Amino acid sequence: MTKPLVQLALDSRNLTEAIANTKAVAQAVDIIEVGTILAFAEGMQAVSALRTLYPKHILVCDLKTTDAGAILAEMAFQAGANWLTVSAAAHIATIESCKKVADRFGGEIQIEIYGNWTLEDAKAWVNLGITQAIYHRSRDAEIAGKGWTAEDLDKMKALSDIGLSLSITGGIVPEDIHLFKEITPKAFIAGRAFVGESGLATIHKLRTEIAQYWE
Amino acid sequence: MTKPLVQLALDSRNLTEAIANTKAVAQAVDIIEVGTILAFAEGMQAVSALRTLYPKHILVCDLKTTDAGAILAEMAFQAGANWLTVSAAAHIATIESCKKVADRFGGEIQIEIYGNWTLEDAKAWVNLGITQAIYHRSRDAEIAGKGWTAEDLDKMKALSDIGLSLSITGGIVPEDIHLFKEITPKAFIAGRAFVGESGLATIHKLRTEIAQYWE
Repeated sequence: MTKPLVQLALDSRNLTEAIANTKAVAQAVDIIEVGTILAFAEGMQAVSALRTLYPKHILVCDLKTTDAGAILAEMAFQAGANWLTVSAAAHIATIESCKKVADRFGGEIQIEIYGNWTLEDAKAWVNLGITQAIYHRSRDAEIAGKGWTAEDLDKMKALSDIGLSLSITGGIVPEDIHLFKEITPKAFIAGRAFVGESGLATIHKLRTEIAQYWE
Repeated sequence: MTKPLVQLALDSRNLTEAIANTKAVAQAVDIIEVGTILAFAEGMQAVSALRTLYPKHILVCDLKTTDAGAILAEMAFQAGANWLTVSAAAHIATIESCKKVADRFGGEIQIEIYGNWTLEDAKAWVNLGITQAIYHRSRDAEIAGKGWTAEDLDKMKALSDIGLSLSITGGIVPEDIHLFKEITPKAFIAGRAFVGESGLATIHKLRTEIAQYWE
């Protein structure tokens, strides 16, 4: 079993702050994500700047692509992203366009699961050769106080069973890591929790938890 | 019956080109849209630059917001957008967050309809006070040769009947305008069709068609 990776999601509204936040914890994380907020605030220069600064990290561009897949994917991979997020609500033709561009760049597509979707949709993604998906509570659902439910875990298990490696996000805290032991996530993603004075300590606590359940 | 408006969608990868394309047809369109491609390419400066250049047009920011609604909405409205798109796949709490920010700025939310959705979802949007939605074929579905179907028109009618003004996009051509006469769209949206040498002529043709069906 592969140990889940740790992903820093950058959701600052400006690149300078995002770079400062990255610098503080970069050596402790495996994956750096240009979050949707940062991408919309600063554009694709956010991806290229972080690629230049951190050439060895896996770099994720979180566009939650919904349409115009070929163009958005080309923009993201050209700027240096390794992985690109695509919305589960996108038309299958959009997802296929993204996958083709990813293949051309040696990158990967992560399906970002939101809204109404079916296991049939998920099988269609797998049929396109997609191997990754992101499962989360929405930030707003999180604010609304919705925790991880048995239903979430069942859905994750079902997605995992058909061949999708899941990255998990939405208020991830070290205390919740044990919940996901049945599904061997690809990565745990957090943003604000990894930022500020306690950021490094939180990451170390997360890694300690991860080491308890995966070798 | 109000005459449908005409909306220019800007999907250039750079702001300079987007501004040039706008300048060529601005006097002929009612609404200028910073498309997802332009927004991700250049960031929110694309919105603020177009707001400064075209203070009297309705300005749409097409973020297809899926999460982090309050922050993305604040970014868009602060930069000068009048309307913001929010994905139909977003959690209802995200949509509500966006609506609250829109109200604070005197702006409006447009629900962008993609993927699996139900009329119950649509009623929940209306219950939040949302009055607009965008209906379209995806760019990739369009490329895949999917035209406007009777099913599309039925869905549009149903959405219109519960109180949503629809903007329609996805390969809009003057010859198709008559298809939508039953639903009185809020706007017809096009991008590439309004750009280049024939851009203005296409817009005039579209307006001539519109004048045939709405007063």
